[in-house]
Amino acid sequence: MATTLVVNPGSSSRKYALYCDGNLVLDLRFEDTQAGFEMCTRFSGGQQICEPIKESQFSDAQALVADEVDKYLFRESAGSLGSVIVRVVAPGTYFQNHRVIDDEFIKKLQASGVSAPLHIPTILREIAGLKKHFKLAKLLAASDSAFHKTMPNKARCYSIDAVDARAHDLYRFGYHGLSVASIVRRVHSVIGQDPERMIVCHIGSGASVTAVKAGRSVETTMGFSPTSGLPMSSRAGDLDAAALLELMRFKNLRLDDAEMYLNTRGGLAGLANEPDIRRLLDRRAQYDSTAKQALEKFAYSIQQAIAASTVSLGGLDVLVLTATAAVRSAELRHLILAELSHLGIVVSPDRNNALVGSDGVVSVRNSQVKVVVMRTDEMGEMANIAYSLAGVE
Amino acid sequence: MATTLVVNPGSSSRKYALYCDGNLVLDLRFEDTQAGFEMCTRFSGGQQICEPIKESQFSDAQALVADEVDKYLFRESAGSLGSVIVRVVAPGTYFQNHRVIDDEFIKKLQASGVSAPLHIPTILREIAGLKKHFKLAKLLAASDSAFHKTMPNKARCYSIDAVDARAHDLYRFGYHGLSVASIVRRVHSVIGQDPERMIVCHIGSGASVTAVKAGRSVETTMGFSPTSGLPMSSRAGDLDAAALLELMRFKNLRLDDAEMYLNTRGGLAGLANEPDIRRLLDRRAQYDSTAKQALEKFAYSIQQAIAASTVSLGGLDVLVLTATAAVRSAELRHLILAELSHLGIVVSPDRNNALVGSDGVVSVRNSQVKVVVMRTDEMGEMANIAYSLAGVE
Repeated sequence: MATTLVVNPGSSSRKYALYCDGNLVLDLRFEDTQAGFEMCTRFSGGQQICEPIKESQFSDAQALVADEVDKYLFRESAGSLGSVIVRVVAPGTYFQNHRVIDDEFIKKLQASGVSAPLHIPTILREIAGLKKHFKLAKLLAASDSAFHKTMPNKARCYSIDAVDARAHDLYRFGYHGLSVASIVRRVHSVIGQDPERMIVCHIGSGASVTAVKAGRSVETTMGFSPTSGLPMSSRAGDLDAAALLELMRFKNLRLDDAEMYLNTRGGLAGLANEPDIRRLLDRRAQYDSTAKQALEKFAYSIQQAIAASTVSLGGLDVLVLTATAAVRSAELRHLILAELSHLGIVVSPDRNNALVGSDGVVSVRNSQVKVVVMRTDEMGEMANIAYSLAGVE
Repeated sequence: MATTLVVNPGSSSRKYALYCDGNLVLDLRFEDTQAGFEMCTRFSGGQQICEPIKESQFSDAQALVADEVDKYLFRESAGSLGSVIVRVVAPGTYFQNHRVIDDEFIKKLQASGVSAPLHIPTILREIAGLKKHFKLAKLLAASDSAFHKTMPNKARCYSIDAVDARAHDLYRFGYHGLSVASIVRRVHSVIGQDPERMIVCHIGSGASVTAVKAGRSVETTMGFSPTSGLPMSSRAGDLDAAALLELMRFKNLRLDDAEMYLNTRGGLAGLANEPDIRRLLDRRAQYDSTAKQALEKFAYSIQQAIAASTVSLGGLDVLVLTATAAVRSAELRHLILAELSHLGIVVSPDRNNALVGSDGVVSVRNSQVKVVVMRTDEMGEMANIAYSLAGVE
């Protein structure tokens, strides 16, 4: 039996999923919530059960995972775990490939930690823990930017000195690739076609817009780092470089401070002191004008990105909204999509309001562009990558 | 007789124009060309006459201008010069107004020199020279960002900490406002209407795209500084903040170095080692793939900006291309406009090729969007501003 453990480490949550022969059999999530730490378990077909855990258990989540996985595999006589695959978000041409994690990989990841001091250490810690707890399994890396390798030169390059760009590997790598790939893989199952010209908006605590032509990425809003592109929960997104230099000058920020600032004091957190879109929508409903303006800016940036993305596609057939915030909130979707009729995007208020937390079409029947809401499946995508990486060897 | 001298100082050229009662009567240009320094004079209705000058004369151009202006006014018995108005490109809410240049203005401009060390000193030197040579005239400042004061909050704000933005005046001010205003003022004379939804692409050595709704700016690509937005001749335009920090880290650049880098090693100069669009088009014609790719990136960025701008307008009626590069080159216009038919933009190759250096329509008769090429008239715009500023007092 081909078994793989899929690992998606985040700052406030850590997700693990066990797949056997392509099927999700066990899902484990560890969350650092306002109410404390908790662990949620769900076996395929069963209910999710959550229980509080200690901080030390959260930190050493992998020990609990290893225990659950061992128990499951023993019970099902599934042999030992074949592979562990972990999501890697790191800038660099090297990291734009799914890879076997070996010493070279870890060395390069450590080196890249200088450039992305906020993200890389988390991944390095996760990998160290996985090596310790899953000694016999093959350790693999699923690149979150591999999907964007197909972007043409004009989308991949910054307009800076080409010699410097080459020397320091400064290109637009893009992220949310696993999420977008999972949409491309499953969109046919929702609308009965594989669209030629599709835009995928991933709107969770991170946000991005990707143009997909015949299944391949041709443009995306995130560039060198996942901080770039659209404003997000707490990330600034694209910020005029001169304005950033001015900010650094006034606030006396060094490079790492500026990096931290862009990641934590930008986006909705910066504009309205609240990173949570749900709470902002609540505040907006209570006539809070700061919340209203922050959400307007957020929606506007996504609208501009959708419009700009039509250039790489020469038009648009299907628009997909995915990831938690987009799937959960009909109101947010309305804010984003209401004013795009000039692009052929016409949403049905009834269909939109009726759809919460599941997949479906929300555009009117004769909308030139079909608008689809779909849950993302990064974990399933990673399980597939694990099988094909294992197959390649 | 109401007389005003209009001054447009640049790094490699300095332009002066004398207006009497709204009419351009004398045009003086000083250029720092590869062949040396030269001064070009043209009286209204006459031929332009260029002659070589010494570097010292270029530096003290204002003495030559004062001499020519005095001679003209004496000959025409026009009295003494009423006002001198100078184009000011400076970030800041204060500078988003046309103003009388007084001590407060100069103090604020000096302070702003810390933020824009490449542009402000040139303007300060120009103002000092004008004060010396035109002691009796009223000295006025034409703001290049005043036209963008009407941009809504969602276009004006960066998604950073709102408290910091207020404290340090970090907003998207926009530039090329004089140029766009001059198009809004004259577009009726070319197409017989004042469009409700218009986009103006200014493509010279600087480049920007502005969305104009019922005559007012609602969005523009340049933000806090004129280095931002689109890639330009040698300016980088918008660059992922994290990529900038990475570049500073690798090349050990301080804030001012980074500012200089973005202004001189970006855009076409960075991508293809050539800031001149004409020469790049020549290289492209000779199958130079670096030039081809740089121009593709340049055109693509403009296309994306045009598409994104339709969001603030809810569609598009008229697209105007202006400034030297766009007015001069049918080939460049073709590169930019060829792939935008999904936005209703369909250009006639014949009309486009036939139009060089003058105003006219280049779209096909049934194009949903009318595409217009127009020369810019920043100098005339400034003369108008001088009259209304003088009138207000």
